Amino acid sequence: MNHTRFWGIEDVSITECDHRILAENLTATHDVPPFNRSPYDGFAIRSSDSKHASMNHPITLKVVETIGAGQVAEHEIESGMAVRIMTGAKIPDGADAVIMLELVKELIIDGETHIQIKRSVKKDENISFQGEDTQEGTVLVKAGTKITPGIVAILATFGYHTVSVYKRPVVGILSTGTELLDVNEDLQPGKIRNSNAYMCAAQVRAMGAEVRIYQHREDNFDSLYKSIKESLQETDVLITTGGVSVGDYDFLPEVYKKLGAEVLFNKVAMRPGSVTTVAVFEEKWLFGLSGNPSACFVGAELFVRPVILKGMNMLKPHCRVTKATLSRDFPKPNPFTRFVRATLSEEIDGNVVKPAGLDKSSSVSSLVEANCLIALPGGTRGWEKGSEVGVITWHGEGSEWPWDHPLFSKSSAIKTVEKQL
Amino acid sequence: MNHTRFWGIEDVSITECDHRILAENLTATHDVPPFNRSPYDGFAIRSSDSKHASMNHPITLKVVETIGAGQVAEHEIESGMAVRIMTGAKIPDGADAVIMLELVKELIIDGETHIQIKRSVKKDENISFQGEDTQEGTVLVKAGTKITPGIVAILATFGYHTVSVYKRPVVGILSTGTELLDVNEDLQPGKIRNSNAYMCAAQVRAMGAEVRIYQHREDNFDSLYKSIKESLQETDVLITTGGVSVGDYDFLPEVYKKLGAEVLFNKVAMRPGSVTTVAVFEEKWLFGLSGNPSACFVGAELFVRPVILKGMNMLKPHCRVTKATLSRDFPKPNPFTRFVRATLSEEIDGNVVKPAGLDKSSSVSSLVEANCLIALPGGTRGWEKGSEVGVITWHGEGSEWPWDHPLFSKSSAIKTVEKQL
Repeated sequence: MNHTRFWGIEDVSITECDHRILAENLTATHDVPPFNRSPYDGFAIRSSDSKHASMNHPITLKVVETIGAGQVAEHEIESGMAVRIMTGAKIPDGADAVIMLELVKELIIDGETHIQIKRSVKKDENISFQGEDTQEGTVLVKAGTKITPGIVAILATFGYHTVSVYKRPVVGILSTGTELLDVNEDLQPGKIRNSNAYMCAAQVRAMGAEVRIYQHREDNFDSLYKSIKESLQETDVLITTGGVSVGDYDFLPEVYKKLGAEVLFNKVAMRPGSVTTVAVFEEKWLFGLSGNPSACFVGAELFVRPVILKGMNMLKPHCRVTKATLSRDFPKPNPFTRFVRATLSEEIDGNVVKPAGLDKSSSVSSLVEANCLIALPGGTRGWEKGSEVGVITWHGEGSEWPWDHPLFSKSSAIKTVEKQL
Repeated sequence: MNHTRFWGIEDVSITECDHRILAENLTATHDVPPFNRSPYDGFAIRSSDSKHASMNHPITLKVVETIGAGQVAEHEIESGMAVRIMTGAKIPDGADAVIMLELVKELIIDGETHIQIKRSVKKDENISFQGEDTQEGTVLVKAGTKITPGIVAILATFGYHTVSVYKRPVVGILSTGTELLDVNEDLQPGKIRNSNAYMCAAQVRAMGAEVRIYQHREDNFDSLYKSIKESLQETDVLITTGGVSVGDYDFLPEVYKKLGAEVLFNKVAMRPGSVTTVAVFEEKWLFGLSGNPSACFVGAELFVRPVILKGMNMLKPHCRVTKATLSRDFPKPNPFTRFVRATLSEEIDGNVVKPAGLDKSSSVSSLVEANCLIALPGGTRGWEKGSEVGVITWHGEGSEWPWDHPLFSKSSAIKTVEKQL
């Protein structure tokens, strides 16, 4: 996280800022309400006129005009006068209270409208005062906040027709593997279609980045080196999938070395995804994720997400952590921290989590059901149905680091085991 | 919900289908794995060759070729032969087991590579069999499911470079109110900027619809009728904000009547948003939401959301319900079901909810903090800190109707009180 940098700032229109991250504080550019206004339909009066009003001694006021919301009274109200006023309209000068519509009786006297009031009204009664909700200059939303519909309402209210947000980093995705076919190719013996690039692209777009998918490459050092070097010219972050530990063909760390990139770590004590390599090179990021779909998925959420979001100044750039009750046994021991793809049901009576599919790391189908990862600390034996387990999700607000809850800490957790190549 | 209709179907590219709703079942177009493959780096052999191998009596096999992932062996393996094989590569014909790399010793005999094996290997050992994860023809994802990155992986794996999804309905938003200014106008006495249209647009986009914001209108029957009639020509759903109960200027129900629309309900026993009018007209929907920002927000989530999502065949088109512990007193009695804007913290040790801002229905600023609504059933008195309350959120998977949990049912709940105009 010490290597993160900001992705820059740009202005976008209020109609195109959904889910973007604010790069400026939003300030109230005027008081709310911007003027004293009526919270009800009624009549604006001088409260002193009603001082002696009662059931037996009603007082009568002349209605000099009617104003709707958005209209401004022409008359200054004097003693004996009332103005019919709608919800939200500005209190006329001279008036200091509003009496609700249903508390008066309307009368016509000499062809002119009057109202009869049978109770006294206090000064300031039924007036929403200028600034009582929000005062001009108040910081309403801080930079680093994701724009929600409620924040869009703030932008509109205060006249921000454009807003300053963090740029989306450009994330390149380059899959390697001689076995790969493109999505529109027919299946061939020994080959499989490249699913990692498209999956990872969807993950990264959901994190708020812009994606470029590059043509996948064979496991060949020279062509891979060339592709990576070229792709880095036009990306802030380059994710490769595969090529980190493919038997004899373990190119990625070598490519990073040849580039002159600083490898931050090259193996992680976790399953799946132990062969994850992360490096930085001239303010760009290189993520060498496994070609195994599960490991690739987990690597993107655990390692790529916080780098993208921290670069937008988000306070909680990591995946959200929660806990849930395990709905069935998970008998495997966990020599290393294990992330199990699972289905979290946030039921009204509590969270329940179920391991998805077969938990074979090659199983693409379990990715359909999975909406979270169960995080089982390394050094633990199997877990029984009914146990409380820590869960990591990529929905909703994130979390801060480290995950210091006991459910995650009974272990060395995600510990870098090998810093050097 | 009986009036909902489907919005139609269209094909989109795999790179542009994020968050769309599947209009077709996704089927495995081939087995997974598509061929028998090796889960490890090792040597493919005939298991019978190893039958008598032991520490004291190792057997030796000749390595006839090396295949990486994506390569296919040229040789059919015969007795005495082995093929070096990488993770994911196809098992050569003739071989019926794989022995892991670390369990053999490589030797050069007469200039040719051999391996020595010191244990017996069972038939089928270390083979991932064709179809063992998923068989061709299996329905993997059902229509009505929202496309996630995991589902994108499925699309890519099975060659869906385009996918059939439900169309986004076109939702028009038309604000009414003589007091309204546009977002780029300077403030004027008695007027406020139109925040509802932009807020509501962001809400509706988040539901997956396409939005058209129309120029806001004054509270004038004829111009409003004309605008609504014209807008309906090019929208599937038309939301108006304001004009439902603005003192003397209560136009919307009258406009709907003149159009010949069927008004489904015109008032709802809830706060805020009691003056919500919903009508249908020639397979189009009309939502007359309050001009009050809070009521408008609540109305869009409670009434517009399920219509949009049901039209995409989603199984759980309503807002998600959960429960949480109230973090402070809420002393107001609730003659009607009340929806209180609030901040839900999904902490690892449970959900905590705090009413946001002042809970004045005019308060725009509390919309910033709010990420949920506390639902307090009608007919209840105030609620104390520490109480368990029902919460409605618009994040994540939705819920089915009705919300029959006791936290929501202690009342007439959201009951239509007036069906006729």
